[in-house]
Amino acid sequence: MRFASDNSGPVHPKVMEALATANEGWALPYGNDDWTRSAIEKVRTVFEAPEAAVYFTATGSAANALALATITKPYQTIFCTPEAHIEEDECNAPEFYTGGAKLTLVESQDARMDPDALAHLLEAKTGKNVHGAQMGPLSLTQVTERGTLYNLDHLRDLTAIAKRQGLPVHLDGARFANAIVALGCSAADMSWRTGADIVSFGGTKNGLMGAEAVVIFDPELAWEFELRRKRGGHLFSKSRYLSAQMDAYLTGDLWLDMAAKANASAQKLVAGLEKTDAVRLLHPPEANMIYASFPAAAHRRLSDAGAQYYPAPGAMDGADDTLASCRIVADWSCPDAHIEEFLGLVAGK
Amino acid sequence: MRFASDNSGPVHPKVMEALATANEGWALPYGNDDWTRSAIEKVRTVFEAPEAAVYFTATGSAANALALATITKPYQTIFCTPEAHIEEDECNAPEFYTGGAKLTLVESQDARMDPDALAHLLEAKTGKNVHGAQMGPLSLTQVTERGTLYNLDHLRDLTAIAKRQGLPVHLDGARFANAIVALGCSAADMSWRTGADIVSFGGTKNGLMGAEAVVIFDPELAWEFELRRKRGGHLFSKSRYLSAQMDAYLTGDLWLDMAAKANASAQKLVAGLEKTDAVRLLHPPEANMIYASFPAAAHRRLSDAGAQYYPAPGAMDGADDTLASCRIVADWSCPDAHIEEFLGLVAGK
Amino acid sequence: MRFASDNSGPVHPKVMEALATANEGWALPYGNDDWTRSAIEKVRTVFEAPEAAVYFTATGSAANALALATITKPYQTIFCTPEAHIEEDECNAPEFYTGGAKLTLVESQDARMDPDALAHLLEAKTGKNVHGAQMGPLSLTQVTERGTLYNLDHLRDLTAIAKRQGLPVHLDGARFANAIVALGCSAADMSWRTGADIVSFGGTKNGLMGAEAVVIFDPELAWEFELRRKRGGHLFSKSRYLSAQMDAYLTGDLWLDMAAKANASAQKLVAGLEKTDAVRLLHPPEANMIYASFPAAAHRRLSDAGAQYYPAPGAMDGADDTLASCRIVADWSCPDAHIEEFLGLVAGK
Amino acid sequence: MRFASDNSGPVHPKVMEALATANEGWALPYGNDDWTRSAIEKVRTVFEAPEAAVYFTATGSAANALALATITKPYQTIFCTPEAHIEEDECNAPEFYTGGAKLTLVESQDARMDPDALAHLLEAKTGKNVHGAQMGPLSLTQVTERGTLYNLDHLRDLTAIAKRQGLPVHLDGARFANAIVALGCSAADMSWRTGADIVSFGGTKNGLMGAEAVVIFDPELAWEFELRRKRGGHLFSKSRYLSAQMDAYLTGDLWLDMAAKANASAQKLVAGLEKTDAVRLLHPPEANMIYASFPAAAHRRLSDAGAQYYPAPGAMDGADDTLASCRIVADWSCPDAHIEEFLGLVAGK
Repeated sequence: MRFASDNSGPVHPKVMEALATANEGWALPYGNDDWTRSAIEKVRTVFEAPEAAVYFTATGSAANALALATITKPYQTIFCTPEAHIEEDECNAPEFYTGGAKLTLVESQDARMDPDALAHLLEAKTGKNVHGAQMGPLSLTQVTERGTLYNLDHLRDLTAIAKRQGLPVHLDGARFANAIVALGCSAADMSWRTGADIVSFGGTKNGLMGAEAVVIFDPELAWEFELRRKRGGHLFSKSRYLSAQMDAYLTGDLWLDMAAKANASAQKLVAGLEKTDAVRLLHPPEANMIYASFPAAAHRRLSDAGAQYYPAPGAMDGADDTLASCRIVADWSCPDAHIEEFLGLVAGK
Repeated sequence: MRFASDNSGPVHPKVMEALATANEGWALPYGNDDWTRSAIEKVRTVFEAPEAAVYFTATGSAANALALATITKPYQTIFCTPEAHIEEDECNAPEFYTGGAKLTLVESQDARMDPDALAHLLEAKTGKNVHGAQMGPLSLTQVTERGTLYNLDHLRDLTAIAKRQGLPVHLDGARFANAIVALGCSAADMSWRTGADIVSFGGTKNGLMGAEAVVIFDPELAWEFELRRKRGGHLFSKSRYLSAQMDAYLTGDLWLDMAAKANASAQKLVAGLEKTDAVRLLHPPEANMIYASFPAAAHRRLSDAGAQYYPAPGAMDGADDTLASCRIVADWSCPDAHIEEFLGLVAGK
Repeated sequence: MRFASDNSGPVHPKVMEALATANEGWALPYGNDDWTRSAIEKVRTVFEAPEAAVYFTATGSAANALALATITKPYQTIFCTPEAHIEEDECNAPEFYTGGAKLTLVESQDARMDPDALAHLLEAKTGKNVHGAQMGPLSLTQVTERGTLYNLDHLRDLTAIAKRQGLPVHLDGARFANAIVALGCSAADMSWRTGADIVSFGGTKNGLMGAEAVVIFDPELAWEFELRRKRGGHLFSKSRYLSAQMDAYLTGDLWLDMAAKANASAQKLVAGLEKTDAVRLLHPPEANMIYASFPAAAHRRLSDAGAQYYPAPGAMDGADDTLASCRIVADWSCPDAHIEEFLGLVAGK
Repeated sequence: MRFASDNSGPVHPKVMEALATANEGWALPYGNDDWTRSAIEKVRTVFEAPEAAVYFTATGSAANALALATITKPYQTIFCTPEAHIEEDECNAPEFYTGGAKLTLVESQDARMDPDALAHLLEAKTGKNVHGAQMGPLSLTQVTERGTLYNLDHLRDLTAIAKRQGLPVHLDGARFANAIVALGCSAADMSWRTGADIVSFGGTKNGLMGAEAVVIFDPELAWEFELRRKRGGHLFSKSRYLSAQMDAYLTGDLWLDMAAKANASAQKLVAGLEKTDAVRLLHPPEANMIYASFPAAAHRRLSDAGAQYYPAPGAMDGADDTLASCRIVADWSCPDAHIEEFLGLVAGK
């Protein structure tokens, strides 16, 4: 029962095949190879953005930090939610890559940023002149860090507020595919059509070995990004092996199929959890990630059975019926039998 | 004929196999997996350093920059040769990762640092007090950037000079295996026994997909390194795929076999080039990399035949017998037929 | 009527005299002069800290940023209030000087940090491992940015929470003298005896031309500070002119006399404001800074009379009896007649 | 006998007077005062640059680092001589303020940069693509760090080479006034007319207490500079005291008079030294700074008499007639009697 994260399952066999195929013969390094050219074109097609600059990195933190560094000055601040991965889980990578910019936390509900709070904050920053941090990009995460989604109107509202101040918008799409599938919209709808200027387009959490794309809709930023990627040690000499992953990902809807499978598994879990009286969902589980609380006794049963997921610290310690929270994540490779077993243990059957 | 670099050939089949094996089932992320544990132990065994802290990165620039950042303060300067990869080919990655340290260039012959020049420079720095950059680590590259080697005495001399000032020593071993094979010594001989404190142990240029190890002989620096790796976006969630490469590399002498093959190919090239009167070797070719000059006519013949190597800018433009320089690199996968063909074209037969 | 800030009045005549005296003859640069030696000793005496390392800077932002950089790693976060000068008014100087550390905002009342909120946050950070920002120093401001004070118990509570986690404590004492006078305690009481490890000891807001001291109770940090000061461009060649200011400041209680005068002026303002029905004090005015709201009509009368203070944006625009907020600051040079006039205009007499 | 540096003499009485006058009454902080407005206009007039952005800092390192940071990207390199103050004497301040840019050393004679060496280096950098440091500004020092001067043609040659590559030019004018006086040209001639884009215009080494101007000929860079100055902790709240110094400096040719006096004193020293057989001038002493070597016996006589200057380490230790080098600097306040005494001791009379 592996529900700890969508980064612990195997790489999809088709991706492994693509790597094997890419391994035939020689290829020029640093992106001057056919696999890279092909993968870039596929990203552009998916995003309906034929002019976009597209680059590949091996980690999501690299994608985010490089994307933000490309559009942020060191005396600016980036607006994000308190739950944002860039705030909570990157050990100051954005501060490092931007050369010392700040992150300003904007109030949120269920990890979705509140437009009024953003508008209010931007207004307050306006009067600070040279003394305060200058206003920099807005960074939003979709799927959010609590497993919820912004609908397209919500995205549009937030980016419009930023754009009234001339601020660029970054989208952290570590689970971009899961969001697309859940919303039933296109990549273009969820990015440039709703105001995103630069996107971290994730693959690693959705069946790749380690490959993300940064999609930059303004190609004038391309060279700036390339220099920062090199300086960060993120330019791969053997680029074909990053590109081949992304190429396979975007071939024949593999990316959407894997995300659909992950979301469906999560929804099966949700449906099962909702049948158990003692379970509380902490945030609406709209993609492949569930935050829930249930009795310590259930946590202990899961633990005894070796289930992997993220119970809160101390979740095993309470009295049998003390509610304790946890995070449960499904990925493309999740067997139905694991779901059944997990639900059975929660329900105590 | 692919002699442009040792980063353009395929990944060794045994490494691809290891990746396929590593792909079975689930694994905890961020290095909490069996492949990572196994690969770390193998590195420690090879280096005869059971206490060493060992970490994997996907690029050599990341390995170098993180290693240096772990032992350099932002107000210090790093001593290296003018040819050093960290000076010439990393777009200021060391300056970035150290938070603004300087690089001080020490005179070299054939890209080997001159001990007298180093001693002289360190002495001159001593009197600067708070005003000048403070003395930081010595960084040496083995195999050097011009294809030459330091023998162990030379290494010992240089590190002794640094250590008299209390300075730590970094070894950029992007081609560590090629050096070991050429010198016929052990990894321990060429690292901690001759004064290295931290090593970038390369794999990418020697048949891996993209994996290097940073070997830190003082385990007290481990946590500092881990935080800097994370902050640089170089901590892989799916670590097993880095580790599996390194594990296969150090299994059954694969790393030494590949390096031996690359070196032998280069020596065949050297032997052939030396038979051609018009060829001049620019530096002693002691491992798998050759710097040579030969007539523009030969460069044109190679170019017409589609040979891949690095001729100097304008090498094709001179009169037939104008000498023009180039770099030629052999990797593990180099077919003998390519060598024959290349030599034939140089010789004009 | 000059109540805009305590940085707009003249330098005290005794300080000007000291500068004139210091200007006689030659002096070795960079702090190797008698004025600097004398001023350092006076700071140590005032703080009852004979071993402390003491350095002078010309601005409070430099003092804060250098002090924090000396005790913060780039992968850490600094804990401060949302109102903190280092968060709000230094254009990312702390992020810059620390090499990219973060600031984490801790809830406050009247700009005093809430100990429970701090304890809660530190606990939450404990579980983040390598992924989150690591815990760095606690930074407190005394007098706070809203004109209130921590009493010594409150300081002790906060620093104890930090110290339980091994975190160092920085005190931003831009208005240190005003706090000392208001609390009736000693400099030692308000610094190392209540847990501060490093203090920005302000002078510029209290009658100096531009001089602050950084007081470091652990002398082992001295060299680190010196290098960072030099690298920041804050080492003055003609140091005697910074030191002479600080020397005069600490001679014959001048620093306390000026602060007492500033506080007394503010208390006269408070007493007068409290007599006017429509005035609301927004925070307890415990030193020389007052946050109040009163009717727009009063703001307009003040504005027409040329009074200098900080009304909130739009304060002049409302209906006559609309309350609008403002900041009023008194310094050592404030004439009583200005106070009378200001109060008369507020009261509408 | 004070010849150690031009930073150890007193502040000129007219500057002290200006400070006293500026101290009358209140003034708005952060540059919103009449003294600042007046001083800015005087700088613009001197430079014949009515549109120039002009800012004041208290140290030369701050002026240089902020000027360079305004025109350098973190992935670029700055071209300077091996003797440059920014390379040798600022403890990595340029690397810090630029966010990690590199300094590339260009060959020099008598600390004057060699145009051919510069041209050659820029050409070599052209082919590095994303891998090498990108080309950033050219930084020249006038008066050079060895007391020599560039004539205007030499300046023009160097800046033309930079400008052919589109690179901006910084002039470190810590001793700008001494150069102007020695060359007999105007400030405009020695800056924008010969290709400088941004100038550190020194005052501290020429009779001020601590004030430099940064003159930026492209006013579009003004805001970038202001933010970086604030972020560096170099924005003074009580700006009037920096500005009043600069205002007095540029009133009635005080700046030129002081520089002329310093240069004349140095020339008297040179004339005297040249009369002594055993003295060798190490560089042409063209302004107020002399590098010479003379017998150890003379160094000992000077030392015994308490003369302040910079003998090389060990200069006192040799046999009587062993030549040992030293630096001798004259400032505006140098009494003729000191010169006589110094020369007498060197000559051994």
